[in-house]
This record gives sequence, structure tokens and C-alpha cells, in this order.
Amino acid sequence: MKGNDLISTLYEHGTLASLMAGNMDGTITVADLLKHGSTGIGTFNGLDGEVIILDGEVYQAVSDGHVNHMTDRQAKMPFASVHTPEDLEKIELSNVDFTALNGDFAEKHALKNIFAALRLKGNFNHVKVRIAPKQEKPYPSLLEVAKGQPTFTNDNVTGTIIGYYAPEIFGSVTAAGWHLHFISDDRQFAGHLLEFNADQLTGDLQIFDNLQQHMPINDQAFRQGEVDMGILRDSIAQSEGNND
Amino acid sequence: MKGNDLISTLYEHGTLASLMAGNMDGTITVADLLKHGSTGIGTFNGLDGEVIILDGEVYQAVSDGHVNHMTDRQAKMPFASVHTPEDLEKIELSNVDFTALNGDFAEKHALKNIFAALRLKGNFNHVKVRIAPKQEKPYPSLLEVAKGQPTFTNDNVTGTIIGYYAPEIFGSVTAAGWHLHFISDDRQFAGHLLEFNADQLTGDLQIFDNLQQHMPINDQAFRQGEVDMGILRDSIAQSEGNND
Repeated sequence: MKGNDLISTLYEHGTLASLMAGNMDGTITVADLLKHGSTGIGTFNGLDGEVIILDGEVYQAVSDGHVNHMTDRQAKMPFASVHTPEDLEKIELSNVDFTALNGDFAEKHALKNIFAALRLKGNFNHVKVRIAPKQEKPYPSLLEVAKGQPTFTNDNVTGTIIGYYAPEIFGSVTAAGWHLHFISDDRQFAGHLLEFNADQLTGDLQIFDNLQQHMPINDQAFRQGEVDMGILRDSIAQSEGNND
Repeated sequence: MKGNDLISTLYEHGTLASLMAGNMDGTITVADLLKHGSTGIGTFNGLDGEVIILDGEVYQAVSDGHVNHMTDRQAKMPFASVHTPEDLEKIELSNVDFTALNGDFAEKHALKNIFAALRLKGNFNHVKVRIAPKQEKPYPSLLEVAKGQPTFTNDNVTGTIIGYYAPEIFGSVTAAGWHLHFISDDRQFAGHLLEFNADQLTGDLQIFDNLQQHMPINDQAFRQGEVDMGILRDSIAQSEGNND
């Protein structure tokens, strides 16, 4: 349990609901995003790939399987989350996979109603990721995109898992439960984590007091977008429900 | 449309979902809440009344219909929202009621996907409020409490409406749509606004870039609370769905 005097914040730009509706134009620059944290995940303008941010360095996995080291700080993102690592709880896990993270681990750390960041490093026996392909206008819904996303696997690879846990009641605002990305130590393999298992991983867990949810209020597509909560819930379940 | 360089934040402590589940113990002091804004709404420990905060002064409407001017800054609240009035858009409305706020007004200001604060002053032809009665442990669900809340009406009264608009996708985190409280100029009549109409009101609208959602992460009832999303949606619809 952290002390009462420490306040930590997860910063999120954009909402999953708006992205689901096909609002995929970037609405925050990398430069502005990095003002709120050095570590995180997201996607680029047009849903172009899976982003991993570690120590202020930005990596983009694109849908042919390559990883770009992005140095353009004016590139824009429609949806991204970052934080500043601090007040970390050290984690050591054996025989770990999504079943363990969703089960014993989430229960032990009483995650279900809070936001947390997880970083895990080590050698992975197996990793499976997916990478969103860049979309062109008129943008389809995220559900349509999700049906045709390429996946990639890698065995015996050393790397880092980075991402977040979000409470179920925020499940239209962001991805509920675990939303994790992976990047290999050689920065050649990365993506949105679908499956993994490892004998031994080490890392850290950070629990947030605050979600700072930033809205692109000057973006008309965001502002005017229609939300059908029933369709939204079904779509999120189909496109994001892949971790258990 | 506000400028890109102005950032404003709505601060919220606690979640509607947790309150619905019966977690009614206060988890933030008035002193700590007021660090994040001078104006807002909320409720006290044990769901004791309806709170109106104007210019840093805290008023509590209690269920016998009286209004207390609260000066105890160590009193605790389980759920509250505050902001600092700034970058205000002046509002003048004729023949205004909830139908107008939910319809033309929300559409004109493109509110549906954003958070906003509304403050309206003037003479009201009619006002109907409800006031949550203080609960004792073991706390019931908010749905149970909502079934038996006293209501009060007042005609030809001058006063202020203060409260917030929230997007539908945040409807388990806070009250979606309008969540407004009322207090009379003589500070003798106040509560959670159920109905009103007025010939002419003036005030201001403030649109937020950010929701700062603060969680009572050291509170075990909050941390461990079970959320059944289906029951939660039904309960919120029944207990909060009163403005249209």
C-alpha cells in the first residue's frame, strides 16, 4: 500500500470509444504527450501501428512487422497513455502468462478498481503480438480493422512488456483490464501483446491515484461523434477482448 | 471554441460505481478537495445530504430540508467534483428547463462527448430538489437509498444552479449527462436538482480539457468492491435518470 502523501497520475489522451468510432486522426503531438510521462503505449495517426514508449524513446511497430525508432516529435497520435515511473513496487514472477496476470496477480495486488502500470523484463519462451495496419480515410470502425490485423510470433526472445490495468467501469474510455505492448531488447520485434509465457520475469508495478483523461476538445470528429453504448460494448468485447 | 493554449480540469474524487455499491464512507477531506477547485458538488460521509460549493463556501442540504453552512474542513466526502471557474463562456437563457438543457443547449455547445460545468443564476418559477438522507452502516446500495429520498419544491425563488455535464461513456464513473445542484440566494433551500423552470437565467459554461479522476486507493471498501456492470447500469438508470 502506498503512502497517502504520494500522488501519481496516469495520463491518457483520447478515448477508446472515439477510436472505435473511427476517429483515427492524430490529436496530440508526441512532444505534448511526453510532457506527461516518459513511458507508455499508444498508436499513431491513422491507427498506424503499435507504440511503445520507454525512457522517453518512442518505438512504432508497423504492420509489416518492422519496428521504427520514431524521433519525429511533431507526429500525432489519436490515443495514447503515458506516466512517469515512480513509487514502484518490485515484481518477480515465475511461470507467467495472461492467465496468471488476470488471476492471482490481479487479485494479490487488488487491481480491479484502480489504474496501474506494469513493466516486466526477461526472456520470453513465446510471444504473440498483433499490429494495427495504417488506415486511410474514410476511416473504418476499429471493429472492422480488428478483423484483419496481422499477428506475429517470436520464441525465446528477451524483451519488455509495458502497459496498464484499467477498472471495468472505464471500459468505454480505455481498454479495461490489461492493455499491454511488447518490445524486444534488440528493438526488432514489437506489438500489442496477445499471448506470452515466460519462466521468470522481473519488473515493477505502479499504482495510480489519478487518471488524467485528456480530451481533444477542439477536434470536431471527437466532439461530434455519435456513441451507441450497446454497439460500443459489443465492439470493444470483440476487438479488445483477447487477453483471457 | 477555446484556445489551444488554455487547459482546464474537472477534478473528481471517488466514483459513482463505488457509491452505488454502498461505499459511503468519506474518503477525502473538504480541505483536500478545495485544493482542486472553489466550485462544485458532492455528498458527505454516509451520503449525508447534497453539497453545493460556491466560491470556496460549502453548503450542505440535509434531508429534513435545512441547509448547513459547513465550515469543518476535516469533514469527509465519498464522492465530489470541483473545478476552478476560468475561461468562461457567458450564457443567457430564456424559458429554460431540463428539456432545453438536454436538447438545444447541449446540441448548440456540442457537449455530448466532453465534460463541462454550468452555473446559472436568476429567478426560478419552480424548483424541485431531492436530498439524500444520511445512511448508517451497514450501508445499503444507492439504489435502495434512491427509492426513499425526500423531495422539496419551491416557487418564485432566486438562486443558483451549479453542476456538470459528463459524456455517456463515463456513465459508470460519474453521472452521465447533467448532474446539477441548486441553492437559493438566501442559502435556505438547496438540493439535487430534479426539475426547474425559469423565464430568464444568466451564467456561464466552462468546457474542460481534462478529467482528473482521483481514486481513494487506500480505502479497502473502494479497492475490494465488486462491480456487476449489468446491475450497475440498471441501478444508475433508476436512481440518476431523472433529468429528462
